[in-house]
Amino acid sequence: MKNRKLLMIPGPIEFTPEVMRAMAMPTTSHVAPAFVECMGQALELTREVFLCPGGQPFIVAGSGTMAMDMAACNLIEPGDNALVVNSGYFSDRFGAILERYGARVTHVKAAIGDVPSLDEVEAEIKKGDYKALTVTHVDTSTAVLTDIKGLAGLCRKYGVLSIVDGVCSVAGEELRQGEWGVDIVLTACQKAIGVPPGLALLVASDKAIETFKNRQTPVGSYYSDWANWLPIMESYENRKAAYFGTQAVNLVWALNVSLEQILAEGMDNRFARHRLMSDAFKTGMAALGLKQVPVSADKAAHTLTAPYFPVGVTGGVLPLIAEAGVILAGGLHAEIRDTYFRIGHMGAVSASDILATVGAIEAGLAKAGYKFEHGTGIAAAQAVLLQ
Amino acid sequence: MKNRKLLMIPGPIEFTPEVMRAMAMPTTSHVAPAFVECMGQALELTREVFLCPGGQPFIVAGSGTMAMDMAACNLIEPGDNALVVNSGYFSDRFGAILERYGARVTHVKAAIGDVPSLDEVEAEIKKGDYKALTVTHVDTSTAVLTDIKGLAGLCRKYGVLSIVDGVCSVAGEELRQGEWGVDIVLTACQKAIGVPPGLALLVASDKAIETFKNRQTPVGSYYSDWANWLPIMESYENRKAAYFGTQAVNLVWALNVSLEQILAEGMDNRFARHRLMSDAFKTGMAALGLKQVPVSADKAAHTLTAPYFPVGVTGGVLPLIAEAGVILAGGLHAEIRDTYFRIGHMGAVSASDILATVGAIEAGLAKAGYKFEHGTGIAAAQAVLLQ
Repeated sequence: MKNRKLLMIPGPIEFTPEVMRAMAMPTTSHVAPAFVECMGQALELTREVFLCPGGQPFIVAGSGTMAMDMAACNLIEPGDNALVVNSGYFSDRFGAILERYGARVTHVKAAIGDVPSLDEVEAEIKKGDYKALTVTHVDTSTAVLTDIKGLAGLCRKYGVLSIVDGVCSVAGEELRQGEWGVDIVLTACQKAIGVPPGLALLVASDKAIETFKNRQTPVGSYYSDWANWLPIMESYENRKAAYFGTQAVNLVWALNVSLEQILAEGMDNRFARHRLMSDAFKTGMAALGLKQVPVSADKAAHTLTAPYFPVGVTGGVLPLIAEAGVILAGGLHAEIRDTYFRIGHMGAVSASDILATVGAIEAGLAKAGYKFEHGTGIAAAQAVLLQ
Repeated sequence: MKNRKLLMIPGPIEFTPEVMRAMAMPTTSHVAPAFVECMGQALELTREVFLCPGGQPFIVAGSGTMAMDMAACNLIEPGDNALVVNSGYFSDRFGAILERYGARVTHVKAAIGDVPSLDEVEAEIKKGDYKALTVTHVDTSTAVLTDIKGLAGLCRKYGVLSIVDGVCSVAGEELRQGEWGVDIVLTACQKAIGVPPGLALLVASDKAIETFKNRQTPVGSYYSDWANWLPIMESYENRKAAYFGTQAVNLVWALNVSLEQILAEGMDNRFARHRLMSDAFKTGMAALGLKQVPVSADKAAHTLTAPYFPVGVTGGVLPLIAEAGVILAGGLHAEIRDTYFRIGHMGAVSASDILATVGAIEAGLAKAGYKFEHGTGIAAAQAVLLQ
């Protein structure tokens, strides 16, 4: 037996061998000519992966939460009104971050598994004098997918800055920042971007940068302040070394490799592959009789799946699935934590990974005493893959 | 010729093969049992390397500046008085960070290459009602070393919190946080800690944590807020998974390897090796007629050296030294930037590295037209190494 389990959680995920080799390359200086070229390229490629030709990219050592922090602290001034389109755990978090930087926050909230409708959001936008709207593209806690194109359209209509938490979506879920006119898209590198954790990525529109430059009050956080980072990003992109904080050199080398791999696949192909893998996996779960947290297929993400445990099965099945070779994640949303589990299928994910994962889930469910016709799930997934 | 140059800058440095292998290990989940054990160990070993048995360690994705941010934002409340013992570039930066979080900042400043005396600092402490004092143990911009033991003693005498920027010192320069009673020591992982960049490390005393817990106002930064991170660190140390931001998993695995290597050498041996390598290198520079930025030997760091270029030589010598196989760093302190250069010799640095570096500097200087007896520098360094 290989002593190597498949990591199918919603980040970190399975990374490519080329990315892992870059992680172990002899570390260069953060101002070495080779690294300046690498960082400059990574910034350019980030813009391409975000499909935002006119945007300003930022790559900084930190987690996805640091990227959220950076978006909020640079755009919000005390007393600003902010609207949170709330679809779960990470929407709540964005609300807390906005409040930290002085925003008056209103939440438009849906039931668990659902998202607020565009009409509900528009009705609320009309009421208040909102400066910014935040939305979680894919809530990692529930696998719920929001309609970014529609929400960004509303924001443009009413002159509100749109801020998209794309942590579990960028480079997997369809997201066209430039075309859809989103002001901020942010993510972390360990999701569909395909690099071990440690980098926060963010692309800002002209309007976002202009809003930042017209601030009347200082930015609340020093480390996340664009006044410190913007000249550094501009300098590296012009292939000139610059120093504010030392870049996470090896992670940036790995990022550059991964961004090249993503663009070699092509964004449209990549979105299509994520849809196919997701459809196959979700069809497999349905065939086993497992319901999902998202209330309908059009509100379900393609980067992860959040199935409820079937009747008679508890979280105790996860170690059994791990024994069968695949690591999955438990629930995260406080109100339903013990009733469901989560499977990430993004980044370099292949048909083999999907089949192995459905297979291990079948093995775990069988051991847990759940009754089903063995092979039903995996056959249903395969039928989709071979369509 | 090997196409592999020696990286002798003041961070990132040369890392051990074991650390680089950990960088490329298949990434685990941040809540996997194996990673929980790794993170728990890394926290315990951090406490040992900082020589602070009673301290509370923090390990967070970010740069050294993020660690400074974390120290300032959690301890400072608007209107607090803070004293900066200023020995250069990074002291100025700490002043700016403290001001961002509302402190009224006073600098006790020395001339370039010098440090304020304990008497000067004490005279200032007596004047103001200071809550905290910050000091850069080794200023990476000038290689100046401050007297942390003496300053921490003053802080205890007057009830002032002592905050030490140990970015270029921890695990290289003698620093005994517990015994000397320092409230905060912080660093970044790419210096003498010996891990590719991307982690901020900080150890806080009971008094620092108590000061944080007694705050009357919210912490200015969300990402750096101990309210978010303290429960996570406590949980991992108790070998229970917890989530706030995703840990930089591979970097933490690498950190754990490096901390074990550091402690296998032993802290006293490690301090002695850094002193020996530094003495050998500095003796070599002196033999070549190069003066140093620090005004005297007792004010010079052992983790790096900052020599002035000799008369007739400019920064153009650095590419010549690189051609000879060793990457060095240019000046960083704005007022003298073009007159000096910097050599890091910390972490895994060996006698061979020191000899190779002095040798490459001789080669560069010779090519730049500087007149000296070839071999003088390297022979002088070797004489110290073989004492």
